[in-house]
Amino acid sequence: MVIVMKDHAEETDVKNVTDRLKSLGFDVHRSDGVTRTVLGAVGEKRPEFDRRDIELLPGVLEVIPITKPYKLASREFHADDTVISIGNLKIGDDTVVLMAGPCAVENRDQIMLIAEQVKKAGAHVLRGGAFKPRTSPYSFQGLGEEGLKYMREAGDKFGLAIISEVMDVSQLEVCLKYVDILQVGARNMQNFILLRELGKVRKPVLLKRGMSATIEEWLMAAEYLMAGGNYDVMLCERGIRTFENYTRNTLDLSAIPVVQKLSHLPIIVDPSHGTGRRDKVAPMARAAVAAGANGLEIEVHSDPDHAMSDGAQSLYPEQFEELVSELKIIAPAVKKKIQPYLDNLL
Amino acid sequence: MVIVMKDHAEETDVKNVTDRLKSLGFDVHRSDGVTRTVLGAVGEKRPEFDRRDIELLPGVLEVIPITKPYKLASREFHADDTVISIGNLKIGDDTVVLMAGPCAVENRDQIMLIAEQVKKAGAHVLRGGAFKPRTSPYSFQGLGEEGLKYMREAGDKFGLAIISEVMDVSQLEVCLKYVDILQVGARNMQNFILLRELGKVRKPVLLKRGMSATIEEWLMAAEYLMAGGNYDVMLCERGIRTFENYTRNTLDLSAIPVVQKLSHLPIIVDPSHGTGRRDKVAPMARAAVAAGANGLEIEVHSDPDHAMSDGAQSLYPEQFEELVSELKIIAPAVKKKIQPYLDNLL
Amino acid sequence: MVIVMKDHAEETDVKNVTDRLKSLGFDVHRSDGVTRTVLGAVGEKRPEFDRRDIELLPGVLEVIPITKPYKLASREFHADDTVISIGNLKIGDDTVVLMAGPCAVENRDQIMLIAEQVKKAGAHVLRGGAFKPRTSPYSFQGLGEEGLKYMREAGDKFGLAIISEVMDVSQLEVCLKYVDILQVGARNMQNFILLRELGKVRKPVLLKRGMSATIEEWLMAAEYLMAGGNYDVMLCERGIRTFENYTRNTLDLSAIPVVQKLSHLPIIVDPSHGTGRRDKVAPMARAAVAAGANGLEIEVHSDPDHAMSDGAQSLYPEQFEELVSELKIIAPAVKKKIQPYLDNLL
Amino acid sequence: MVIVMKDHAEETDVKNVTDRLKSLGFDVHRSDGVTRTVLGAVGEKRPEFDRRDIELLPGVLEVIPITKPYKLASREFHADDTVISIGNLKIGDDTVVLMAGPCAVENRDQIMLIAEQVKKAGAHVLRGGAFKPRTSPYSFQGLGEEGLKYMREAGDKFGLAIISEVMDVSQLEVCLKYVDILQVGARNMQNFILLRELGKVRKPVLLKRGMSATIEEWLMAAEYLMAGGNYDVMLCERGIRTFENYTRNTLDLSAIPVVQKLSHLPIIVDPSHGTGRRDKVAPMARAAVAAGANGLEIEVHSDPDHAMSDGAQSLYPEQFEELVSELKIIAPAVKKKIQPYLDNLL
Repeated sequence: MVIVMKDHAEETDVKNVTDRLKSLGFDVHRSDGVTRTVLGAVGEKRPEFDRRDIELLPGVLEVIPITKPYKLASREFHADDTVISIGNLKIGDDTVVLMAGPCAVENRDQIMLIAEQVKKAGAHVLRGGAFKPRTSPYSFQGLGEEGLKYMREAGDKFGLAIISEVMDVSQLEVCLKYVDILQVGARNMQNFILLRELGKVRKPVLLKRGMSATIEEWLMAAEYLMAGGNYDVMLCERGIRTFENYTRNTLDLSAIPVVQKLSHLPIIVDPSHGTGRRDKVAPMARAAVAAGANGLEIEVHSDPDHAMSDGAQSLYPEQFEELVSELKIIAPAVKKKIQPYLDNLL
Repeated sequence: MVIVMKDHAEETDVKNVTDRLKSLGFDVHRSDGVTRTVLGAVGEKRPEFDRRDIELLPGVLEVIPITKPYKLASREFHADDTVISIGNLKIGDDTVVLMAGPCAVENRDQIMLIAEQVKKAGAHVLRGGAFKPRTSPYSFQGLGEEGLKYMREAGDKFGLAIISEVMDVSQLEVCLKYVDILQVGARNMQNFILLRELGKVRKPVLLKRGMSATIEEWLMAAEYLMAGGNYDVMLCERGIRTFENYTRNTLDLSAIPVVQKLSHLPIIVDPSHGTGRRDKVAPMARAAVAAGANGLEIEVHSDPDHAMSDGAQSLYPEQFEELVSELKIIAPAVKKKIQPYLDNLL
Repeated sequence: MVIVMKDHAEETDVKNVTDRLKSLGFDVHRSDGVTRTVLGAVGEKRPEFDRRDIELLPGVLEVIPITKPYKLASREFHADDTVISIGNLKIGDDTVVLMAGPCAVENRDQIMLIAEQVKKAGAHVLRGGAFKPRTSPYSFQGLGEEGLKYMREAGDKFGLAIISEVMDVSQLEVCLKYVDILQVGARNMQNFILLRELGKVRKPVLLKRGMSATIEEWLMAAEYLMAGGNYDVMLCERGIRTFENYTRNTLDLSAIPVVQKLSHLPIIVDPSHGTGRRDKVAPMARAAVAAGANGLEIEVHSDPDHAMSDGAQSLYPEQFEELVSELKIIAPAVKKKIQPYLDNLL
Repeated sequence: MVIVMKDHAEETDVKNVTDRLKSLGFDVHRSDGVTRTVLGAVGEKRPEFDRRDIELLPGVLEVIPITKPYKLASREFHADDTVISIGNLKIGDDTVVLMAGPCAVENRDQIMLIAEQVKKAGAHVLRGGAFKPRTSPYSFQGLGEEGLKYMREAGDKFGLAIISEVMDVSQLEVCLKYVDILQVGARNMQNFILLRELGKVRKPVLLKRGMSATIEEWLMAAEYLMAGGNYDVMLCERGIRTFENYTRNTLDLSAIPVVQKLSHLPIIVDPSHGTGRRDKVAPMARAAVAAGANGLEIEVHSDPDHAMSDGAQSLYPEQFEELVSELKIIAPAVKKKIQPYLDNLL
């Protein structure tokens, strides 16, 4: 941490700041320039330390942090890419993983049909919501455990791993019985109680970026999971909120190279929520792979016109199939390949 | 809902859209202009209806909703201002209520001292966090039930109502034992599981605006509470996230007159989180009252320099006292008065 | 335009709104529902009409526009893609055009060297700033006409078209003497005086998106150019401002499919300004082509470490060359090809 | 500037960075911690220096600037508040100045009538647009010089100073003939050519904040003016663009105390453009004064329903009068008073 004193600050102010820093356990290095003094404070920061406390002291112009608040999630802590294994499926290596399926599980027939369709097109993971966070209290809220059972059955039958969202600690136990990857939704990215519990679990977690979260906050949320001992975390970019509202959100694809520089965790992109419109999904999915994403999570529905939620952003199965063929062209440009078809996951 | 067809749309497309709307239970009114046809769809919208489904049909240019998604929270549903009573304290009438206290309860002495100070300065409600949402897993997470006990004791002794945050359904039971107002934090504004449970409670809830929530989404979150039968909801503006990062957030004071037009619920302003800097709190608090807020929630600490969290945005007790005297000058300009000193709350 | 009256609005209010609309030259269609009345107002809107005037009338709940404010720039006005020709170079067809060069022209040797390098790597257009908009009054402001001369010489020698920014009407005459494409910078997207003058010119204009411009405002700025008779307009996405500040801006690649749906104008992407960091340029350039962009504008410098401006976001020539080879892999996935090497532009 | 090296960076990398800094004219101070080295670079930064150049060197983790890029506009350069005099009118002292008038001058009668009305209500400066920046090329663009003449006549007759917007260098000469304060609109905040010319002028300038400008960029724009020698600059907050679109913009009132801390220049607030709705103007105007603004710029129209632009955000004269009486109650809370009625300006 660097403390910049105001021009010609009083010596008593400099001393006061120095004493305060020392009382907080920092080593202090002083450097006097022609007009201003700069203090360097080194040492293990106490968790509850708040740099604004120093900023408000007399004579202080600015306080500048020089360490990232996350450790375990950082590339500095772990130089190599994290590769997560689910049976013989790898996430985070030189392949691109495809997660596809409906927004919500609606009934057994629906999920079995879609599972077959997406598997045939090349998907490796089946997505589907059993517990649905809905902005209206009057909307369909998901099938709950029944939905998870159908997903598990579909996954087992077609050789697909299963991903589904857990919205609350109370749903965790039942989710763990069925799913292979636990999804944390954007609205829960800073649900610290939930993150803490998921840190104790030993199943991979896909952590969506909050719709107004900075990349640093997102990595801090990953840190919560990892601090609990769960190291199999993948990050999922799904669009941030900006002033532009033609699209539902603004998909921030530059997050891909940024995250890959700052962290060793795999990054997945969800172009369905990221755009909210079916005809924007394929362009953004292609772009994500071209930018180096480790995978995609895409909504596909056998009958989007009658979907119970988010049909408008779901691809038809044949559109998904066409998209996969385009991705196969693009992946080699980034020295990747689409993860091959796996007859069986285990 | 109004459906605008593209210029010179095919008659088959118009018919297709009309049929689809009818199958969804709408009455359809058609109006043909020189170059384009406009369809009006009237009727009780099914909760799961998604207007984007219509938007994607061939020949459709745009679909425009004409009803607000919230009902119970709207001024149309309830024309008069909601006034919430806690003993003889009123929130939402022509008085301004003052909630003050530390970010976190740290120990019994601290909260007893601050309670006395803020009561003396004119506060009506004591704020203090017992369960703390912290962005770092390594930070102080609050005293839990012990903190709530101290708050209750302080409230009873000094005649202050008690407000504290409930972060998760699992904390609800213990919070209900002690507090008068349950606070929902910004990060939980769309924690629908929590909102649903709070809807069943019969204690007032203060609902903070999510840091990237639109006013409509905020009112929809209030709707969740009210749909469960809990009508004693107050809204709390605490700053939104923008590109400006000199301040921690951008306090959106125009939300005050906007909410007062759209809804009948009281609106409180939190200038401490809204700015994140002690020296910006008083100007924004004054501005909030001048804009017509029903109350303020302000962080005050007897010793901010050693506060365990957010000391940098906490006022010294004497600053709070001075602020209250300024607010007494301002309130009459909006035909309000600062809620008088109540010897006893009940 | 649709006017939604409040529930159970007074008949006198409905009549008042109807009369007002008629006095403004609209035909009014009325439709009465169970609880509310909706009015449709059809007719050529007068330019100075402001829908907020209707919104403020008694009894009005909401006013909803149903026409886009731009005409000439819309896909409805011109269904086919606009293809701009500069000699035998085409922009907007099934090829991807590459514009490359330094942020600023620094001297004759620099621009001749870089022109040779980017031509060899496959570029078709040479970019370079002669008039530089700088946020600090103390920074290098560009070589002016001298810079344009050097660019023209380089373009002629190596068979490259020339693009350079015109910042002000006063610079237009001199720019027209040398350049093939006039660039309007993000800060000038709504410099209406400049747009009006450029509308009178008969040279292609590349219009950068303002850093907080909506897509609709951007198309309105294009409309200014086209209303003056200049139809050779290309749009350039260069990042928008969001709360995320790890990157200089957030490159909004979903603008590509959105613009292509709403408008017939070509869309170019500038990943250099869009990210501000060299190591993010190639991923975003690849992503832009995968999303369907008609071209790229990229900063390339022979010696970025000593560039006079924006060296940090400039590619080394060999990085640019490698990028072009990656783009050649990607383009076929969107049924495009990189515009072939042209020995000579004319 | 502080350069943080990566953990255990190579000595050659540290040396390389040090050499580069020295070659750029910096003095370098080195400080070695347990795991990382931090370099302090002191010395007069060359204007064209770009810290990202250092950031990209091998071994560098982060580069942190420690000086503000603006000088003349900073509170450090000039500790006392700047007070601008226009005749016997003072802006920036302990009074609140009121600027009021129509969005656009429409004809002589209109401006004479409104001038009389706002003067009577207590205004000191008459606002009115003669050159109008309009987002549509088809809208009314203002009366030009004719409008300025009418304003001058109205100002002289009623003892009001005159403020009007100059959109382009080409309009400067004619504006200087008539107006007392030159207004730079939000879209022109970074029109550096215009700023440069205004720096040479010796009349006060009111500089609106760009709709996506940070406070630092805004102060840098003021620096452009001051670097040219024009020290009579006032800043005007008029709303920033956020995701919230119920209001036209989000008025950032916290900019008032922030600017007053960072700079010595007066700050004015425009609640008319800041909200875009008549019924939000008075609450935000009151809030601005309560937060400590030096003045207000408000749209007032004698007949807003028939205004040629922005009628929806214009107050009726009697609303303005009522507002002024409310402001008189509020101002003493911040130890200010509404600037008294001046019979004559000179």
